[in-house]
Amino acid sequence: MTRFELAENIYKKGSCLCIGLDTDIRKIPTHLLEYEDPVLEFNRRIIEATHEYCVAYKPNLAFYEAGGPAGLISLEKTIHHIPPDIFTIADAKRGDIGNTSEMYARAFFDHYRFDAVTVSPYMGKDSVSPFLREGKWVILLVLTSNTGSMDFQFTDIHSQTTHENKLYEQVLHKSMNWSGPDGLMFVAGATHPELLKSIRMKAPDHFFLVPGIGAQGGDMEAVMRAGMNRQCGLLINSSRQILYASSGEDFADKARETAKSLRDQMSNHLKSIIH
Amino acid sequence: MTRFELAENIYKKGSCLCIGLDTDIRKIPTHLLEYEDPVLEFNRRIIEATHEYCVAYKPNLAFYEAGGPAGLISLEKTIHHIPPDIFTIADAKRGDIGNTSEMYARAFFDHYRFDAVTVSPYMGKDSVSPFLREGKWVILLVLTSNTGSMDFQFTDIHSQTTHENKLYEQVLHKSMNWSGPDGLMFVAGATHPELLKSIRMKAPDHFFLVPGIGAQGGDMEAVMRAGMNRQCGLLINSSRQILYASSGEDFADKARETAKSLRDQMSNHLKSIIH
Repeated sequence: MTRFELAENIYKKGSCLCIGLDTDIRKIPTHLLEYEDPVLEFNRRIIEATHEYCVAYKPNLAFYEAGGPAGLISLEKTIHHIPPDIFTIADAKRGDIGNTSEMYARAFFDHYRFDAVTVSPYMGKDSVSPFLREGKWVILLVLTSNTGSMDFQFTDIHSQTTHENKLYEQVLHKSMNWSGPDGLMFVAGATHPELLKSIRMKAPDHFFLVPGIGAQGGDMEAVMRAGMNRQCGLLINSSRQILYASSGEDFADKARETAKSLRDQMSNHLKSIIH
Repeated sequence: MTRFELAENIYKKGSCLCIGLDTDIRKIPTHLLEYEDPVLEFNRRIIEATHEYCVAYKPNLAFYEAGGPAGLISLEKTIHHIPPDIFTIADAKRGDIGNTSEMYARAFFDHYRFDAVTVSPYMGKDSVSPFLREGKWVILLVLTSNTGSMDFQFTDIHSQTTHENKLYEQVLHKSMNWSGPDGLMFVAGATHPELLKSIRMKAPDHFFLVPGIGAQGGDMEAVMRAGMNRQCGLLINSSRQILYASSGEDFADKARETAKSLRDQMSNHLKSIIH
């Protein structure tokens, strides 16, 4: 999917919502446990209930790997239930030496056929490059939403330019030489909305994947004010708030209501850029 | 496995060899392709041929994930062929927000029953902590063996102490407060032997996992001189050099010869610490 197509979907749906399919079998409604593949059944119904309000789905690989190979089969089948016009992100946070990253790229792009994969920058350019493929997307960790983001991402560095004072700024700056905004996005956490604005100034055209609203405490309104560009330029993720809106038989209805309510808030902000 | 038990195995075998089971189905001898699970058959024979010369096996997850769920089944079965006294490392380079890292820990420690997992530090302490379990090991990326290690790991930082001038030194220093040498190891690449010595001075008791000898150009003798402590304190990895020592029917014999030759070199160096 191209950047233009993604922006078109956002305009059309009035939504930049990404739904994190972080499905934990210990948290899904108990009546689903009688199905052969409860995780798949849960995901299928969540997708059916929410797809008109979102533009992306983002399964986090950890939740599927925890179940061993069977968990990955649930993931594989889940992907088949995602409508083809919706952007798919493997939230995998991978990154390894070149020949190994190439194997991960084969997994996520060729086997599971995701549009995008999240990648960790610590090992540098040659660990990221194998994921940069025509028609596919790298979403690079820049500034994450967890408290541990303070440990290294905010390390003061001796900057070569005035634009790089913290490590996350160096990651942003260097990686912008690796690919343009048509193949590279950045993870920028909702828990740092004041910094989203400065990242937006440095990367005016790139899409940002923004985790951390809802359970992690980030404020969606603040994120949209700080981070939007003329194409919207944001995919705002919500996981637990939608998936576990109810633990009863009405879980899918409640997930739909939550997704719709987030879409409605987004829609208001998006009016300013849709003519 | 405890640090003491690992050191005992190293003494007993005269070897600190870790064999990277980075099995690429496109590279294994063609006569194995007639088996139902060629990767498993290859791994089984490699393990049978080499286990007396090594103290650890390290499958890199990427090579199994590339095959989808079936690849993970090959991994699962491979692990059953590793003798129980050999240390097992999931080379996964994971790391995510707390509740997600916990799911990865369940995957590698509970499902696949690895002794250790490699973890990337970019997301900080709360992304690493869920992997710190009694009886299990975190192997944290500090200084990797690829050229991309220059991009961020060597970034000059404003140090709070005289011990931290580069990012990798900050990662080393901070993470030593997260766990002691009985639950935490570090990845320190063989392609930087001169720096191994300085890392050893800062972390005298920790084990280091050292990738990068062989195909990546690192020199084993230099690594052992620079990095050994009184318990050896090193796991030196070789992957492609052993796995693909021959592409013919004699691949397992050639792998054995290569592993034995590495063991013999190691054995000479280990004499200096074995009394």
